[in-house]
Amino acid sequence: MHDEMTELFLENFHEVATIGATPAGGVHRQAATVEDKQTRDWFAAFAAERDWPVTVDHIGNMFALVKLVQDPSAEAILVGSHLDSQPYGGRFDGAYGVIAGLHAAAALQRAVQAGEIIPTHDLIVVNWFNEEGGRFAPSLMGSAVYAQKMDLYEMLQVQDPQGVSVREALEAIGYRTDQSGPANVAGYAEIHIEQGRILEREGLQYGVVDSSWYTQKLDIEILGEQSHTGATAMADRRDALVGASHVVLAVEQITREFPDEALVSSVGQVTVEPNSPIVVNSRVHMVADLRANDPQIVKDARATLLSRFQEIASQQGLEIVAKDFDIRPNLYFPIEGVELAEKAAADLGAPVRRMQTMAGHDSVSMNTTAPSVMLFIPSKDGVSHCEREFTSDEDMIAGLQWLTQVLRRMVEGELDGVEYPGNARQYEAALAQEMA
Amino acid sequence: MHDEMTELFLENFHEVATIGATPAGGVHRQAATVEDKQTRDWFAAFAAERDWPVTVDHIGNMFALVKLVQDPSAEAILVGSHLDSQPYGGRFDGAYGVIAGLHAAAALQRAVQAGEIIPTHDLIVVNWFNEEGGRFAPSLMGSAVYAQKMDLYEMLQVQDPQGVSVREALEAIGYRTDQSGPANVAGYAEIHIEQGRILEREGLQYGVVDSSWYTQKLDIEILGEQSHTGATAMADRRDALVGASHVVLAVEQITREFPDEALVSSVGQVTVEPNSPIVVNSRVHMVADLRANDPQIVKDARATLLSRFQEIASQQGLEIVAKDFDIRPNLYFPIEGVELAEKAAADLGAPVRRMQTMAGHDSVSMNTTAPSVMLFIPSKDGVSHCEREFTSDEDMIAGLQWLTQVLRRMVEGELDGVEYPGNARQYEAALAQEMA
Repeated sequence: MHDEMTELFLENFHEVATIGATPAGGVHRQAATVEDKQTRDWFAAFAAERDWPVTVDHIGNMFALVKLVQDPSAEAILVGSHLDSQPYGGRFDGAYGVIAGLHAAAALQRAVQAGEIIPTHDLIVVNWFNEEGGRFAPSLMGSAVYAQKMDLYEMLQVQDPQGVSVREALEAIGYRTDQSGPANVAGYAEIHIEQGRILEREGLQYGVVDSSWYTQKLDIEILGEQSHTGATAMADRRDALVGASHVVLAVEQITREFPDEALVSSVGQVTVEPNSPIVVNSRVHMVADLRANDPQIVKDARATLLSRFQEIASQQGLEIVAKDFDIRPNLYFPIEGVELAEKAAADLGAPVRRMQTMAGHDSVSMNTTAPSVMLFIPSKDGVSHCEREFTSDEDMIAGLQWLTQVLRRMVEGELDGVEYPGNARQYEAALAQEMA
Repeated sequence: MHDEMTELFLENFHEVATIGATPAGGVHRQAATVEDKQTRDWFAAFAAERDWPVTVDHIGNMFALVKLVQDPSAEAILVGSHLDSQPYGGRFDGAYGVIAGLHAAAALQRAVQAGEIIPTHDLIVVNWFNEEGGRFAPSLMGSAVYAQKMDLYEMLQVQDPQGVSVREALEAIGYRTDQSGPANVAGYAEIHIEQGRILEREGLQYGVVDSSWYTQKLDIEILGEQSHTGATAMADRRDALVGASHVVLAVEQITREFPDEALVSSVGQVTVEPNSPIVVNSRVHMVADLRANDPQIVKDARATLLSRFQEIASQQGLEIVAKDFDIRPNLYFPIEGVELAEKAAADLGAPVRRMQTMAGHDSVSMNTTAPSVMLFIPSKDGVSHCEREFTSDEDMIAGLQWLTQVLRRMVEGELDGVEYPGNARQYEAALAQEMA
């Protein structure tokens, strides 16, 4: 890798970080907003400068084709991530993977042109739509529609809190067509910040993901009775907000009943009704999130929580209804891809940590349709989805070098013939069983 | 009282309860909405049928003048309450007092015309604007502006959550002028449902309020750090919603450290940010409410809570900022008015319970500017600000009879000369001391 290319990568990365920049160093760039359009325009301009044709599909994913082989019907390796962010999110999450993908592709194109590599696949750099799901739920929308895990027409109708649909928002920024994304894909690679502190703690620069955690959400409704905050005796109240507070603490405290960090849980979204200063609240709705590597831990935690919710309901004179949704079984990335990433790192003289991802990533969708490789670099203090999310330039450059080597092996066909669809079938079977 | 009048009162009461009626038997009739306009039109029509001139003041209060004496400069007794409701509130709260006031005034006008009463004062029936404060905070807005306890221009600029100002909302329904309300007021009477269960428990129909509870609110902000719900280790989180849940429970549990029902507390309004399903929340804002008859109990509870909040903040790695606001010292209604109400009940052969009001009422504002009499009738199960709020027709009729007798004595001048302004000065001095 040339120093010149390193410099251009950093210049580009820090330039994109100014789009939707917040005063505290983050970005506010939710899916299909004006700021999202600006990053898309930047992506399109980067591709246009290099004569890479860009296509946009029916759910707003962007694909830049980097033609490396003569055969017009050659299969391609996809590489990328997402340029959208959480509200007041970090500047590394997603954007790093797209910009690193663009520069790795440019480097490999030069290497092919110089005759240093004999590729059997083309490259396509992708910017997935709405990975974050902050404006339009659920998350991973673009990659999941591409991988046919979510229904296109259903997703186009999803509305943001202001009632704007995905279709309207994408058409308003001019980034939707009626065509589907590229077929003929032989593999997918993605590099991302870890969003945890394992690499930082162990002093490593590289992590390769061998599996994703088992996750599920609970849709929880707490029903009490509206009454006057001043005039109603404490003994006569059935306060949904008091019940909801017990539920939030139960969801947090359940993690202490398992080994340290074996289970993570949270309540991220809460609606309170009628939410008037002098009215005892009658209804609280919330979404809780449970994640563990071991599915049994999530199942045990869920069972304990459901019985605690009933204790809370009976103590407080409330009704509590909890429903399972968005169950995501463990997904295993192909071992051949993990080993490929380790070999690529070995060529650079760097050790690699095998790890799980607790967060969802576009690679989790993609791995159901093509053999996928997921790479991590360190996150300072493990924080993410916030303005102080941070990864050093040095770590980003090391990651770019690694991604370039991984992609080199992939375009040379090193993952060809990996027994891949079995994995997708296994995932679907597990999902169907959970949902039953 | 004639049976015919009783029937008309009940007919009118149940007719008004259909305006903004909810399926569960309540009303949804927030201040200056289309439904509020409909009740105002009804009030104006009732007055027009009787040739009572109606005026509307600069904050949307409505006054119907029932001229009883020849002297054009005679002082008037005001009687009334409010026709607005909480969101999905009850059909008795406020509306009962206005409709009972109209019928009591009509009965007294007939008695004057029949020569049965020699009045020294006129009557004015009032429908106060925005007693509830659910759409536009604070509550008691119309009566407090009338009594010069709140600033007119500041209140006209208050906005609802959609950004509509009080001025715009009132002008949109055609119920605002640039004139002030009637001067020359010699007293005020109001009848209201108790919103507690003391009368029901003691099997009484009449309660007279001798004082209001000491109340204060706390504006509480909990600041944590936004992060990823899936990828952030539990130990690394600074979850504002977890902190907020501890705060809500501390506010509820503090009441157990005082004698039963000596203190009531609640958290009625909560805002959560960024409130995305997969983000650990960074900020929660809430309003807590503390009320007791004994000011020292509120002060002790507040001090204990402020130190608990700091314990919660330090345990959870959060910042918690709590600020006092809306402090309302005890207010004593004139003893002469309490005794007048007792004599009026004795004439009807019914016992009266002296009691405190825990809730705010327009009479609390009015009592700072004119000697005021506040009457209560029973509330089933003590519930209020909810759709199942209930008072029987029998209790409403008994209340109407009592109010008519109280007003008869007031228009005959029985409260004239009550050493009233001392009470207002006392209130203002207490308020100034608390705010210092």
